[in-house]
Amino acid sequence: MEQPPSENTHSKGPDAAPNAATANAKKTRRGRPLGDSDAREALLETARELFANRPYRTVTLRGVDAALVRYYFGGKAGLFEAMMRETLAPVLDALRKAGADTATAGQLPAAQQQAEHLMQTYYRIMGRHPHLPRLVFRILNEGDDLEPFAILSRVFADVVQASDSWLKQALLLPGQFDQSVNPQFARLSFISLMVFPLVAPPLILRRLGISINPDTLAALAGHNSRLFSQGVFTPPESAADQNTSGENLK
Amino acid sequence: MEQPPSENTHSKGPDAAPNAATANAKKTRRGRPLGDSDAREALLETARELFANRPYRTVTLRGVDAALVRYYFGGKAGLFEAMMRETLAPVLDALRKAGADTATAGQLPAAQQQAEHLMQTYYRIMGRHPHLPRLVFRILNEGDDLEPFAILSRVFADVVQASDSWLKQALLLPGQFDQSVNPQFARLSFISLMVFPLVAPPLILRRLGISINPDTLAALAGHNSRLFSQGVFTPPESAADQNTSGENLK
Repeated sequence: MEQPPSENTHSKGPDAAPNAATANAKKTRRGRPLGDSDAREALLETARELFANRPYRTVTLRGVDAALVRYYFGGKAGLFEAMMRETLAPVLDALRKAGADTATAGQLPAAQQQAEHLMQTYYRIMGRHPHLPRLVFRILNEGDDLEPFAILSRVFADVVQASDSWLKQALLLPGQFDQSVNPQFARLSFISLMVFPLVAPPLILRRLGISINPDTLAALAGHNSRLFSQGVFTPPESAADQNTSGENLK
Repeated sequence: MEQPPSENTHSKGPDAAPNAATANAKKTRRGRPLGDSDAREALLETARELFANRPYRTVTLRGVDAALVRYYFGGKAGLFEAMMRETLAPVLDALRKAGADTATAGQLPAAQQQAEHLMQTYYRIMGRHPHLPRLVFRILNEGDDLEPFAILSRVFADVVQASDSWLKQALLLPGQFDQSVNPQFARLSFISLMVFPLVAPPLILRRLGISINPDTLAALAGHNSRLFSQGVFTPPESAADQNTSGENLK
């Protein structure tokens, strides 16, 4: 594997600030150079703060080692994409695992547990990175002609595909999904319940007496997934009575 | 009642643009002067467009009759507040009516029907003013040191009070609310289900195949209120089994 550039490697791209990068490298690395994965992880952590606190276009790489950023990520866009992808990776894994489990197990409790596991996974990640949902929300609402929007669209294409795959399988399972529920609305409700609390105006949360922290989020994951499951899945006792063909679903 | 100023009344405040106001008065009024309430309503309608399409601080009253704005609303802040209050008035009425009905009826179907009526009322209003939820969301997220934030806080204080009153009464009713559900979370879920679809990034709605229009919103109100009711209200058959004291609720 290629080695990271030394502190003397000077950068040349449009974002380059060679002297600043060299000066800041010491701050980032503290004494001995960090190992490969440590240095990369430190850049991702810095990126989370940088991108959370100011608009994407005004984020510069001057506060970080630009040569390292280019080495690991190619530049600012690549750093942003990697930060998003790697932060969301556990959520994507949980979604893919839910899809695989649903395809093999096909039991009602499985779908409910998966819904809760997904919520818990998402909230555990976002509990560590509480600014991220607002960042995503802001970028996705800012317009589709911008670079960060294009990046997030790519990142979310994978999440949406995995989510489609899980939900379609869960919907098609005999007796699992309440056939009177609109499946598109069900997906919207799942996202609404999961995401809104993390992007809601602080005033609303204060008025409700809710402060978002890891404990609250763990409890909220349980609440949300119970509410969702009771609303869209057929209760076990009545599942047997239901038309189980699922033919009219897509 | 005092009469609206004539077209010759020149304005003097910091927002004043007397010549523009006089010139634009003709555009707004078309021939005969509009009646009192028509002129006022036309200003509110213009305000909805102005405030929806640009940040509050950059909205000027130059496109409208500044003297009329001062007469009816005192100025830009008053116009904004009146626009918000009057647009939300049917929602506030529905909330207050729900609170009054709950206090007298006290039956399970009542609470479910009220939840649906509230959703329907909110969506009917927002179907007519689809930019409004995003405007509110943006302002509430922009920070509490700004004038529009202070105005919205005042407007929402009434909504929150009416909502508190309804939900506390619904929660306290014997056998109505599932005692295992956290009432704060229940309120957050109601708001999440109701509001998120109207502020969600268009990308998410497109990917879900949902386009927000009055028909979609009417169907979504039904879906949301069923989902919410199944999640937080006790089903009729098991209501009798439940501890009905409600003592530990606030």
